[in-house]
Amino acid sequence: MRSALPKVLHPLAGRPLIGHVLAALAPLAPARTVVVVGPEGAAVEQAVAPLPTATQAERLGTAHAVLQAREVLAGFTGTVLVLYGDTPLVPTETLARLVAAREASTNPAAVVLGFRPRNPTGYGRLVTGPDGLDAIVEEKDASPEQKALTLCNSGVMALDGAILFSLLDQVGNANAKGEYYLTDVVALARARGRRVDVIESCPEDLLGVNDRADLAAAEAVVQTRLRRAAMAAGVTLTAPETVFLSWDTQLGPDVSIGPFVTFGPGVTLEAGVTVKGFCHFENCTVATGAIVGPYARLRPGARVAENAHIGNFVEIKNATVEAGAKVNHLTYIGDARVGAKANVGAGTITCNYDGFSKYHTDIGAGAFIGSNTALVAPVRIGDGAMIGAGSTITADVPDGALALTRAPQDTRPGWVAKFVARLRPARKS
Amino acid sequence: MRSALPKVLHPLAGRPLIGHVLAALAPLAPARTVVVVGPEGAAVEQAVAPLPTATQAERLGTAHAVLQAREVLAGFTGTVLVLYGDTPLVPTETLARLVAAREASTNPAAVVLGFRPRNPTGYGRLVTGPDGLDAIVEEKDASPEQKALTLCNSGVMALDGAILFSLLDQVGNANAKGEYYLTDVVALARARGRRVDVIESCPEDLLGVNDRADLAAAEAVVQTRLRRAAMAAGVTLTAPETVFLSWDTQLGPDVSIGPFVTFGPGVTLEAGVTVKGFCHFENCTVATGAIVGPYARLRPGARVAENAHIGNFVEIKNATVEAGAKVNHLTYIGDARVGAKANVGAGTITCNYDGFSKYHTDIGAGAFIGSNTALVAPVRIGDGAMIGAGSTITADVPDGALALTRAPQDTRPGWVAKFVARLRPARKS
Amino acid sequence: MRSALPKVLHPLAGRPLIGHVLAALAPLAPARTVVVVGPEGAAVEQAVAPLPTATQAERLGTAHAVLQAREVLAGFTGTVLVLYGDTPLVPTETLARLVAAREASTNPAAVVLGFRPRNPTGYGRLVTGPDGLDAIVEEKDASPEQKALTLCNSGVMALDGAILFSLLDQVGNANAKGEYYLTDVVALARARGRRVDVIESCPEDLLGVNDRADLAAAEAVVQTRLRRAAMAAGVTLTAPETVFLSWDTQLGPDVSIGPFVTFGPGVTLEAGVTVKGFCHFENCTVATGAIVGPYARLRPGARVAENAHIGNFVEIKNATVEAGAKVNHLTYIGDARVGAKANVGAGTITCNYDGFSKYHTDIGAGAFIGSNTALVAPVRIGDGAMIGAGSTITADVPDGALALTRAPQDTRPGWVAKFVARLRPARKS
Repeated sequence: MRSALPKVLHPLAGRPLIGHVLAALAPLAPARTVVVVGPEGAAVEQAVAPLPTATQAERLGTAHAVLQAREVLAGFTGTVLVLYGDTPLVPTETLARLVAAREASTNPAAVVLGFRPRNPTGYGRLVTGPDGLDAIVEEKDASPEQKALTLCNSGVMALDGAILFSLLDQVGNANAKGEYYLTDVVALARARGRRVDVIESCPEDLLGVNDRADLAAAEAVVQTRLRRAAMAAGVTLTAPETVFLSWDTQLGPDVSIGPFVTFGPGVTLEAGVTVKGFCHFENCTVATGAIVGPYARLRPGARVAENAHIGNFVEIKNATVEAGAKVNHLTYIGDARVGAKANVGAGTITCNYDGFSKYHTDIGAGAFIGSNTALVAPVRIGDGAMIGAGSTITADVPDGALALTRAPQDTRPGWVAKFVARLRPARKS
Repeated sequence: MRSALPKVLHPLAGRPLIGHVLAALAPLAPARTVVVVGPEGAAVEQAVAPLPTATQAERLGTAHAVLQAREVLAGFTGTVLVLYGDTPLVPTETLARLVAAREASTNPAAVVLGFRPRNPTGYGRLVTGPDGLDAIVEEKDASPEQKALTLCNSGVMALDGAILFSLLDQVGNANAKGEYYLTDVVALARARGRRVDVIESCPEDLLGVNDRADLAAAEAVVQTRLRRAAMAAGVTLTAPETVFLSWDTQLGPDVSIGPFVTFGPGVTLEAGVTVKGFCHFENCTVATGAIVGPYARLRPGARVAENAHIGNFVEIKNATVEAGAKVNHLTYIGDARVGAKANVGAGTITCNYDGFSKYHTDIGAGAFIGSNTALVAPVRIGDGAMIGAGSTITADVPDGALALTRAPQDTRPGWVAKFVARLRPARKS
Repeated sequence: MRSALPKVLHPLAGRPLIGHVLAALAPLAPARTVVVVGPEGAAVEQAVAPLPTATQAERLGTAHAVLQAREVLAGFTGTVLVLYGDTPLVPTETLARLVAAREASTNPAAVVLGFRPRNPTGYGRLVTGPDGLDAIVEEKDASPEQKALTLCNSGVMALDGAILFSLLDQVGNANAKGEYYLTDVVALARARGRRVDVIESCPEDLLGVNDRADLAAAEAVVQTRLRRAAMAAGVTLTAPETVFLSWDTQLGPDVSIGPFVTFGPGVTLEAGVTVKGFCHFENCTVATGAIVGPYARLRPGARVAENAHIGNFVEIKNATVEAGAKVNHLTYIGDARVGAKANVGAGTITCNYDGFSKYHTDIGAGAFIGSNTALVAPVRIGDGAMIGAGSTITADVPDGALALTRAPQDTRPGWVAKFVARLRPARKS
C-alpha cells in the first residue's frame, strides 16, 4: 500500500477493511471472535477493541497465524471461520452457507470457499472428486490438467474446531518460502479419513486488497451495492455513479439525490428530502421535506428539520435549523440554533470563535437576518426580530425588535473622475 | 418504484418518462393522440394536457387498456401506434420504420417491434415464418425450440386502425391472470387471413422502467445520447461522463465544459462559452465568449451577456449581467442588472428581500462595487460609480459618484495581550 | 472537430495532443525532430517552438507530408520515426521497441507498428510472411483472405533514414484520391530486396483523434493511466474515476483525495496532504500535512504550507498561507500572505483591486481576523493582532493590537410590529 496506515485500517465506504469483515460476521453471532494481528498491530488492536486479539510476532504463514488464536479458542469445538482482514467483501449470506456446509450431516473437517476468477493464473486450484475436495494444488505444483481447472482457492474456510489445532500442529514448513500454510489442513484431514468440501462464491465477493488500485476497486463494489440497496428502497439517484455513500447512510423513501454528492459516516436523510447535487454530508440529519443544496455542506452535528431549506455555498456545523427555516446563500452557521421559519440572509456569518473558545448563537423563530450580517456569539436574536443588512450584532436583540449597526451613507458626487485623474494625470500639451 | 409520484412522471433528463414518449412521437405528426391513464391518473392527465386521455378504471390488461381509446379513435382507419409510458427510449426513427412497415403494400394488420435482449428469459418469443409473424408465445407456454428463439416481443406495435377495435373485441381473458392481452391480436388477425410483421430494434431502445435502478439505467442511456450529440456539434466535454444535460440544453460550437456540470431545463450556452466545471445551470442563457465557474450557479432568469465573467461561489438569479461585466467571487446577485463592464467585488450581496417583498438592484455600466458590500434594494448604483469596500448602500448613488458607509477604524495597541491575560490569569507564585 | 482551434492543439490532460507525442518521444533523445504542419499551421508552429517545422502547403498525402522534412533531415542516415499529431497515446516504450526493431541486425528498411482493433473494417491489413511484412493492403483492395487478417496498419513507422527520401521520391499518386501514400514505401523497399518488419501494439495506444468523442475517449485513457500511476505511488483515490489529473500533477505518498477533484497544470501536493473532495487546483503547491476542501479553489500562485487548513468555499490566488494557518470558510485571499498559525474568519475578503491596480495584504503570524471582514490592500495586519468581526480595515494594524470599525448597535424594540402594520394596514370593520 506504500502507506503509514496498516492495510486493514484503510477505509472502504467510511469503515476500515477489517470493520467490513467483522460486520459481515456479526449477524452469525459467533460465540468467540479473535483478531490475529501482525507484530506492529497496536493500531489494529485499538480499532477492533474490545474484541480479543492475538499477535503473530513473525509472519510465518497462514497456519501459523491461526495457531496464535489457540488460547482464545481453547475448549471451543464448534465451527471456526477463518477470514482475512484484507478481503472485506464476503457477504454474511456466504459465511452462513459456509457454516451450514461445515455443519452438514457428513461432518466435513473443513469447507473451503472457492471461486472462479476471470484469470485463474497464480491461484491455488481446487481438485475435487466424488468425495469432495481432494487437494488444493498451488499453481507452480499443478499438472497441466490441474492448471486447466477454473475453481480456485480463496483462502476463506470453515473448520471443525474439535480438530483444528491438532491439524495445525501437524502442518510443516518444508516448502520454498519456509511458511506454514493453512491449505495443508485439507490433505491432513483427508489423511485422517475426514471429508473436506467446497462451496462456491462469485469472484467479486472475494476481491482482496493489496494496493491502492485494489482498494479503489473494492470501494467501487461497495458503492454499487449501497446504491442498489438505496434505489431498491425507493431513493432516486439521478446519476448513481456520482453518489458516494457511507456504510451507515440512512435514506428514506422518495429521497431524491442529484449528481455529485458524498456521504461521510452518520448521516440520515428522512423520507422525501431533496438533495440538489454537489453536497457534502457528515454526521448530520435532515428531516422530511427539507431541500438541501446545491453546494451545501452539512458538518457533524447539523440537524435540519422538516421543510427547512439549505441553499448554495452554505456550511452548517453543530447547529439546528428548525422547521421551515431558510438558510439559502453563502452562509456559515456554526454552534447555533436557527428557529422555525426564520430567514437567514445571504452572507450571514455566526462568529462562534474568538481565537480561544467557541460560543453559541440563538436565532429565534420567525426572525429575519438581513444579508451580510455578522452575529458575534454568544448572542440571542429574539423571536420575530429583524436585523438590518450589513450589521455586526454583539448584543442580544429582544423579540420583535429591529437591530442594526450602520454608519451613515457618505455619497460624494463627481469623486470617481477626480480619483481617475489623480491616477492618470492629464498630459500637458 | 416505491414512490408517491406516478411512474410515468418520474423525470429523465429533466422531462417525465411520458414526455419522452410523446416527444419521440411528435415528428410523425399523428392525426390523433390519446393517453390511457390508470384509475389514479389525475396527475398524468395534467402532465399531458391538452392531449385527450382515456381512463382505464381497472387494470385488466393491455388489450383492455387500448380499448379505452375507442371513443377518441372513433372513425380513424389509419395506422395506430401502441406505445408505453414507461418505455421512454424508442427513437422517432424506429417509430417511423414501424409505421412504414405497417403501411407497406402487403398491408399487414399489425407490425410488432421485436428485440434481442442479452437474456431472453421471461420475454414472449416472436415465432416467425415465411408469412411473417406467426405467433407471440409467452415464456411459460413455449416449447424448447421456441425458448431457443432470441427475438422477443417489446409490446410496441403498429396496428391497422380499420380493424383494431374489431380485433380487440375478440380478445378473451381465459388465462392465468384473467387479463386481456394485446398480443392476442396477432393470432386473431392471422385467423382472418391478415399478415403480421416484425421489425427489429436494439435492446437499449426498449429499456422499460419498473424501478429506480431501471430509471437510473434509462437516465444513463439518455445522457450518453445527449453528450454524443453535443460533441458531434463541436462541444468539448473533457469528461463527458460527468456532465448531465437536460433534454432541451442548447450548446453552441466550441463551447467547452469541464468536469462536474449539471443542466436543468431551459439552458442555452452560445458558441465559445467556457464552463470551468462544478457548475449548476437552470433556465438561463450565457452569451458568446463568457467564462463561467468553477462553482457558479446560474438560477432561473440569469442572463449572462457576451464576454462576461462569473466566477467561483457565485449565485445569479433573475438577473442580467451585461457584456464584459465581472462577478468573480462569493457573490449573490438576485433580481438585478449588472451593467456592461461593471466589476462586482468579492462578497457582494444584493439584498433583494425584506421578508415580505422582492426588490430590484440596478448597477450601472462600468460601476465598481467594492468587496463585502450589501446593496439594499430597491437601489440604483449609477454608471461609473464606485462603492467603498464593506459598505451597506441604501440610497441611490449618482453616476460617477463614490459612496460608502464606514465607521472610523479604531486601533488599540497592546489590546491583545490584555485580552489574553484576562482569559488566562497569571498564576501567583 | 468543428473547431476554430487546430486539432493537434486540443488539450488532453492539460497538454495539446502534439505535446503528448513530443513528450513520448523525448526520452529517446532524437538527434533531430521536425514537425510537419498544414497550410494554416502558424498556431502549431508557435506551440512546438523552438522545434523546426516544415509546411505542407497542400494536403497531398502522408508520403508528401514526410517529404517536406527533407531539408531538416538532410544528411541524416539514422532511424526516422514517423508519428502523428492526432495519435497522442503511443508510449515511449513502444517507440523504443520500434527503433530497436529497425536497428536490428537484419537492418530492415522499415518497421511498421501494427495493432488488432476490435473491428478491423476500414483499416489497411498487414500481410506478413516468412520474410516479414510483404505488403500493406487497403481494405477496398483486399481479397477475402486478406480481409480476414486482423493485424492492421497504424501508420506509425520507423524507417531507414539512409534510403527514406530515395523511396519517397518513387512514391506515385496513381490512386483514387490522387494522394502520395507513405505505406507505398513497403512495396518499394521490398522491390529493392530490403526487409520490412512489423511490431505490435495494443489498440488503446493507437487511438486517433478525429472528433470530440475521440478526444473524450483519449482523455479517458490518459486519465486512467495517470490515476493508476498515482495509486501505485501510494496515493489514495476513493473514487479514481472522479479525479481528473494533469499530465504534470505531482502527488506525494499518502496523499488522500476524495471524490470530485480537478487538477489544472502545475500542481504539487506533498506527502500526506488530505483533499476532501470538490476541489479545483491550478498552478499551486500544498505542503505536507495540509488539509484542503471540500469546495476549495487554489488558483495560480497559491502556496499552502505545512499543516495549514483551507476549508469550504475558499479561493486562494497568488498568496502564501503559512504553516498551521487556517482559512476555513467563505473567504477570498488574493495577493496576500497569511502568517503562520493565523486564523482567518469566515467571510473574510482581501480587497486587492481598486478597479485599476492590484495591491498586497500582509497578515502576520498568529493574527486573528474576525469574520466578515474586508482587508483593503495595501494593508498590513501585525503579528498576533486581532480584527473585530465585520470590520473594514484600511490602515495598518500594529503587532498585538486590536482593530475594528463598527457603528454602535441600534436596537429598536417593537419595531417589527410597526413595520408589518405599515405593510399590511388593518382592515376597517
